[in-house]
Amino acid sequence: MRTRPLKVALLGCGVVGSEVARIMTTHADDLAARIGAPVELAGVAVRRPSKVREGIDPALITTDATALVRRGDIDVVIEVIGGIEPARALITTAFEHGASVVSANKALLAEDGAALHAAAEKHGRDLYYEAAVAGAIPLVRPLRESLAGDKVNRVLGIVNGTTNFILDRMDTSGAGYSEALDEATALGYAEADPTADVEGFDAAAKAAILAGIAFHTRVRIGDVHREGITEVTAADIASARRMGCTVKLLAICERAVDGRSVTARVHPAMIPLSHPLASVREAYNAVFIEADAAGQLMFYGPGAGGSPTASAVLGDLVAVCRNKLGEATGPGESAYTRLPVSPMGEVVTRYHISLDVADKPGVLAQVATVFAEQGVSIDTVRQQGKDGEASLVVVTHRAPDAALSGTVEALRKLDTVRGVASIMRVEGE
Amino acid sequence: MRTRPLKVALLGCGVVGSEVARIMTTHADDLAARIGAPVELAGVAVRRPSKVREGIDPALITTDATALVRRGDIDVVIEVIGGIEPARALITTAFEHGASVVSANKALLAEDGAALHAAAEKHGRDLYYEAAVAGAIPLVRPLRESLAGDKVNRVLGIVNGTTNFILDRMDTSGAGYSEALDEATALGYAEADPTADVEGFDAAAKAAILAGIAFHTRVRIGDVHREGITEVTAADIASARRMGCTVKLLAICERAVDGRSVTARVHPAMIPLSHPLASVREAYNAVFIEADAAGQLMFYGPGAGGSPTASAVLGDLVAVCRNKLGEATGPGESAYTRLPVSPMGEVVTRYHISLDVADKPGVLAQVATVFAEQGVSIDTVRQQGKDGEASLVVVTHRAPDAALSGTVEALRKLDTVRGVASIMRVEGE
Repeated sequence: MRTRPLKVALLGCGVVGSEVARIMTTHADDLAARIGAPVELAGVAVRRPSKVREGIDPALITTDATALVRRGDIDVVIEVIGGIEPARALITTAFEHGASVVSANKALLAEDGAALHAAAEKHGRDLYYEAAVAGAIPLVRPLRESLAGDKVNRVLGIVNGTTNFILDRMDTSGAGYSEALDEATALGYAEADPTADVEGFDAAAKAAILAGIAFHTRVRIGDVHREGITEVTAADIASARRMGCTVKLLAICERAVDGRSVTARVHPAMIPLSHPLASVREAYNAVFIEADAAGQLMFYGPGAGGSPTASAVLGDLVAVCRNKLGEATGPGESAYTRLPVSPMGEVVTRYHISLDVADKPGVLAQVATVFAEQGVSIDTVRQQGKDGEASLVVVTHRAPDAALSGTVEALRKLDTVRGVASIMRVEGE
Repeated sequence: MRTRPLKVALLGCGVVGSEVARIMTTHADDLAARIGAPVELAGVAVRRPSKVREGIDPALITTDATALVRRGDIDVVIEVIGGIEPARALITTAFEHGASVVSANKALLAEDGAALHAAAEKHGRDLYYEAAVAGAIPLVRPLRESLAGDKVNRVLGIVNGTTNFILDRMDTSGAGYSEALDEATALGYAEADPTADVEGFDAAAKAAILAGIAFHTRVRIGDVHREGITEVTAADIASARRMGCTVKLLAICERAVDGRSVTARVHPAMIPLSHPLASVREAYNAVFIEADAAGQLMFYGPGAGGSPTASAVLGDLVAVCRNKLGEATGPGESAYTRLPVSPMGEVVTRYHISLDVADKPGVLAQVATVFAEQGVSIDTVRQQGKDGEASLVVVTHRAPDAALSGTVEALRKLDTVRGVASIMRVEGE
């Protein structure tokens, strides 16, 4: 074993960073044995230097992250500050100064992953980011490496713990969205400003990263169709239950049937209770992968939190350090298929539509005519009526999303349709 | 991209090998793009050269596997013949002649993995074997690499599809063991001689491999306590149901609480229906991993079959080829902890014991005294009696297996105990 240590710079010392630093200290001997050389925490860049950080030598703390990554003696930079800037500039500077990078930054990778990969390759360094998707659950490595000899056709997953917690609470307690969000906030599952989670931005970033790796093409967050959970109602959840389903916020990445394009989307959807993803509770994450040869694989675990994310970061740290010692690099960006990302309108899906209609003869015939005109085939219809009011619940067969949303627009214009109470896609069948 | 192809020798062309060859041909362009160089099937060693093998150039077929691995121009040898010899000699020869090896051979790796790893290291070559454990489910790579910065404490899994199919059938249809085995054989889930599966040898080999990687120590198949499913009865399954449990053949690898030893075992056990492993149906596999920082992870998928196993082999092929091009090697054996493997008697577990007893006063007191004398604490007792016959079902608290089996021996000696109807461990709580 080499005795000269590999030097690690840690950018960010919050929930994840402090846990990375802690494990690097407490498990130093194990890490050294697994890498083949000791690793030394050479500097920790923070915003608030005065904060007491247990177990970290105060002499290592700096507020000048740029100077730290420019030192020239740093082997690996661990970036856990998040956001686009200054993270992007720091990572690029790290590559220029000879360091490899381990990052947990899903937003940056989904926004500008190609440029970061190019910078890593130009300087012969590694860019690893297992922690950017689904915390401790190994997904990036299995997709990049284990399935490298297979053809992935579909990735379907629950990749945001906050929204899963909220939807699970709505499902189990009958709570409304606001009430469930309040509970998530009180328990620390939702941040003070929950926008990134509840509006689906976090899941969309992960979908972009997963789609890019799975299909060997470039997918940016802007390519991902995104709908959050803020409009999911207790009535939607109850409707799902009546269909033998539950509601989950899903990230879905698919290869088109003709193989010439891919799609990536994040939206709430009904899935059958018999589907394994239906039983993913609280803030857990789980991802299904369908591949030609491997068949259906599922990966399950904690999708966030300091310790699980630190586990993923440290796994990458070991790999990157081994590569450095062996003067090699791991797999870089693989985007050779150059498959375009199709818009949501071309995605083939199914709708569950709940309409408030006039309770009089001929309404169903009118509604059915609209579906037929749009070329959308109906799977089931359920009518319920009382006191001159009635509801009509329609579940369609599979059709392009544009035809389905066109149908909804046409339905809104019917005199006999008083309102569209809820629309939700149905997946996982 | 390099244009000179990497040369691959395939040893074995059965269910897995023929699928590997097929995908290498049909997905040649994808493999080349992912590796950075084309891969060429340079030879296929078989036992029966006269068999027609669709899609494989007959000129590549040879019965002389030794000459093939000695050619000197082979970059990677894929070994899918299984068994100890000639596989071991061929792999060793391959390393000596400059090739890296991808193997699906769980029996050989569990018997002699250390020697093979040493040979690979001596010659600066790779030994990869994702396909040896749980088919297409990525387990070896996540344990070796993704969790390399974490501390794994427990691996609990269903790693044999044949036995899971049989137990699932017994559970869902009420069939006895023989009837369920016949069905498994008819459907191709069990081999003509099912010994390796039903007696737990296959699962024990996988447990040895998983324990070795998880705990960074050496575990051989002989170190694994092994009990098969041939003595599981319909009555056991019914008893499990009454407890809210189902019966699964589990592979369990644990780090002792004091951290100074590990254990590895394969045996049928009752697990609660609420446990995710309880819902693993038919021939599927699933493995739970518990680690300090990552928490609980689960991996699920098809555990066997030509295509899934080929997917795992080809993922390794891509990795090994990339390493070859980069003049690097991937992670080798990591056995630095040198933790000893403790015998089954020291494993802490719980027993579900069903006794046929005389239906008279004082029996329970006698039985309870035996448990107390052995230092085993009772969790629940259920008595059922009619017509002078009675049964007593006891579920213990956790205790060393030696104390539990000692208790059973002492119970057998009681006059009032007419027989021990069933004993099964309870796990997953």
